[in-house]
Amino acid sequence: MNLFYDLNAQEGLHLLADDEARHLIRVLRRRVGDEVQVVDGKGTTYVGVVSELTKTSCTLDLRKSEQKTVRSTQPITLAVGPTKKADRMEWLVEKATEIGFDALQPVLCAHGERPKLRLDRLQKSAVSAMKQSLQSHLPAIKDMISLQALLSIANEDQKFIAYLGEELSDTPKNLIEAYTPQPGRGVSILIGPEGGFSSAEVGKAREFGYLPVRLGPNRLRTETAALYAIQCINIAQNLARD
Amino acid sequence: MNLFYDLNAQEGLHLLADDEARHLIRVLRRRVGDEVQVVDGKGTTYVGVVSELTKTSCTLDLRKSEQKTVRSTQPITLAVGPTKKADRMEWLVEKATEIGFDALQPVLCAHGERPKLRLDRLQKSAVSAMKQSLQSHLPAIKDMISLQALLSIANEDQKFIAYLGEELSDTPKNLIEAYTPQPGRGVSILIGPEGGFSSAEVGKAREFGYLPVRLGPNRLRTETAALYAIQCINIAQNLARD
Repeated sequence: MNLFYDLNAQEGLHLLADDEARHLIRVLRRRVGDEVQVVDGKGTTYVGVVSELTKTSCTLDLRKSEQKTVRSTQPITLAVGPTKKADRMEWLVEKATEIGFDALQPVLCAHGERPKLRLDRLQKSAVSAMKQSLQSHLPAIKDMISLQALLSIANEDQKFIAYLGEELSDTPKNLIEAYTPQPGRGVSILIGPEGGFSSAEVGKAREFGYLPVRLGPNRLRTETAALYAIQCINIAQNLARD
Repeated sequence: MNLFYDLNAQEGLHLLADDEARHLIRVLRRRVGDEVQVVDGKGTTYVGVVSELTKTSCTLDLRKSEQKTVRSTQPITLAVGPTKKADRMEWLVEKATEIGFDALQPVLCAHGERPKLRLDRLQKSAVSAMKQSLQSHLPAIKDMISLQALLSIANEDQKFIAYLGEELSDTPKNLIEAYTPQPGRGVSILIGPEGGFSSAEVGKAREFGYLPVRLGPNRLRTETAALYAIQCINIAQNLARD
């Protein structure tokens, strides 16, 4: 059964959101009485049937499903300097959503090369990956902000910055060792753009409580590093849950 | 400084391989006397200078560098049922190479949808990712074989099969828990195509010593699952090394 996404899904008769209705009618060619499943991106799954169809709109009859996807009580924010090529960011959102994370915060850095992002495309990647991986939580795709702004508003309990530079006096550990899952406590990881962070930026982030960490022995591309970080945190959280 | 790849690199005067020579001459516009770095994909890095140039060929004067990239003594083989879309396999090879693995073994499965693969394109992704991540080891990209053939030749010390089906009597653990790094001992992970493995295939793999494992709580696409597995194994190996 295909999964549909509707932010406003609710029990009872519900007019399915436009994009999804079009997909249901024109691509999947569903009929009245067909069973459907809808997620609201906020953790709830609905099951039901197609109740009415026109050429362009679709009304569903829905009830809440018992089924809940497991989502961490330790929200993961990925703050990242966007890559030069837009498709690498879309790819990152797709993969990070499959594996599980809560928010993408694009950050304008000194060495960043992409001051504008097509947020609608990133949003689309997230929705499609959420449905593909049968989840009911949609990660938030936030507007780009400056690094300075991020540092002053970030209030996660554990904050890390991926660091590739010279050894610091306090040698940074690998993220997987530095991160300790704590129920109810959020974590943020800051990943630089292709040009990396300036040393002023690293210094500033440290002042705001970001711990420099390494992500394994190799030099990774921005989007690979970001996915690697998401996965380290997920693995640590899953291990702690068992 | 750009890194070049030449399988046959050696000390002394060396005629750079065609593709790389073209890149050095036409794209990077290097001159005689310019410094270069060459990796042979087998763990050795050479440093030297451009010694002679024509319009289409380039001779380098090389000596071995002390620099060695860390490569595990626990080789990682990724056996995977190719995805329907070729670019997802190329993406997988790029990312897995950045993070570090040793061989890609495409496997023809009952539910596989792609009986042919452009190995040259996968090879190109591997070379480019190796250079990008400053490594000197190139993973092997192998010819596609049948699952039956793979099972009868695979001789790694630890073999895993990603399993999404019903709970087995012996509930499979997550890969990160099931895998124990052992110096000098290889590991292989088998990932199904988009259609998954048939239950006959899972049964067969188990007979041949493959341990069913899960890859976290979500249903992942083939290429996401494969990268997730590579990363679990890398994280476990890096933790054991520290």
